[in-house]
Amino acid sequence: MNFSQTERTALKRLPMRGVYDRQVVYAILDEGFVCHVGFVSDGKPVVIPTGYARVDDRLLIHGSAASRMLRTLKTGIDVCVTVTLLDGLVLARSAFNHSMNYRSVVVFGTATAIEAADEKLTALRALSEHMIPGRWDEVRQPTDKELKATTVLSLPLEEVSAKVRTGPPHDDAEDYALEIWAGVLPLKLVAGDPVNDPVLRKGLEPPAHLLKYSRQSE
Amino acid sequence: MNFSQTERTALKRLPMRGVYDRQVVYAILDEGFVCHVGFVSDGKPVVIPTGYARVDDRLLIHGSAASRMLRTLKTGIDVCVTVTLLDGLVLARSAFNHSMNYRSVVVFGTATAIEAADEKLTALRALSEHMIPGRWDEVRQPTDKELKATTVLSLPLEEVSAKVRTGPPHDDAEDYALEIWAGVLPLKLVAGDPVNDPVLRKGLEPPAHLLKYSRQSE
Repeated sequence: MNFSQTERTALKRLPMRGVYDRQVVYAILDEGFVCHVGFVSDGKPVVIPTGYARVDDRLLIHGSAASRMLRTLKTGIDVCVTVTLLDGLVLARSAFNHSMNYRSVVVFGTATAIEAADEKLTALRALSEHMIPGRWDEVRQPTDKELKATTVLSLPLEEVSAKVRTGPPHDDAEDYALEIWAGVLPLKLVAGDPVNDPVLRKGLEPPAHLLKYSRQSE
Repeated sequence: MNFSQTERTALKRLPMRGVYDRQVVYAILDEGFVCHVGFVSDGKPVVIPTGYARVDDRLLIHGSAASRMLRTLKTGIDVCVTVTLLDGLVLARSAFNHSMNYRSVVVFGTATAIEAADEKLTALRALSEHMIPGRWDEVRQPTDKELKATTVLSLPLEEVSAKVRTGPPHDDAEDYALEIWAGVLPLKLVAGDPVNDPVLRKGLEPPAHLLKYSRQSE
């Protein structure tokens, strides 16, 4: 099912890059885990990076209850959350036609705080599992005090659009005759080998799920 | 020389993560090449990803002269530009103390358009060289028409702050006794092998600089 286009989400330029298909949007949101949250403070824009997870048709973000951003968003002001995945540099034969391959999602709306302790715990588990699948069940669970010190916000995925560019460069017809290499340099966020905490207890090994960590689905 | 702290850039929480040193800020901006641009439209926040370059004490962004974002920013409205580099997932012994290692920069200000053709060309060269060092001199240079179709904006690096988290997890004292692995999973944006344009002329090879492409300085 597609998201409805609104005045804000309808792409004015390069409309062929606009995507409103819910499954495409969800796949982008599920691959990423850091978003950029925009809000207006004293009439001026502020953009802050933070982790997130998607659960069904909601985006969850969380942080310290003392966080200025979360306390501001909790009041129900308008927010814009953008997720960007970089897939490659697009090298054309002309400087002008250089581009990037990327997939991005922009969400407009207002967020509400999840207050009930059991719902908050479920949300925190989802955030953890989104970022590091398999980790939640390995670690010491949140105490009541820690739960209270954490704010979780939920943003409905209603006014949403995605923008996607893939594939090779598009050059002007006459430039294809030039003796200039053209193509794509793929880019990818990859995990290295886990690094032990310097004060790790002897005999502990990194969990197996970390050794095959990847954001890209197979 | 440090950036002066302002009401907006002074970190209220976790002030030890705040960085105002100009060389640290510049190093982050020089490693990244995609920023998230926040502005206010009809009283509501909008956040859009785009490429950028730093030249001295200015941040440059560019795009089509028809771009709604660039046309809006050109009017001199307030903008917030945020650059985020992800360095790793920080796995603590408790769910609560999980974190991320990252380096981010937030710039507040207003942008102005670079109008003179020669300055615009210099700026476009800087943008290209920032994203793909060595490419500019290999490709067909912009025509007057292409220059006119491109808008370049310059944002002074005046009201700027960085936020940095590095190193191992910080657990509660009593949690260090738990038999739970803890440490850091490093993350990095890496380039793959260049992919030829399917209609590439025979005999052309990817330029050498692409084969050793890396955003991280040695």
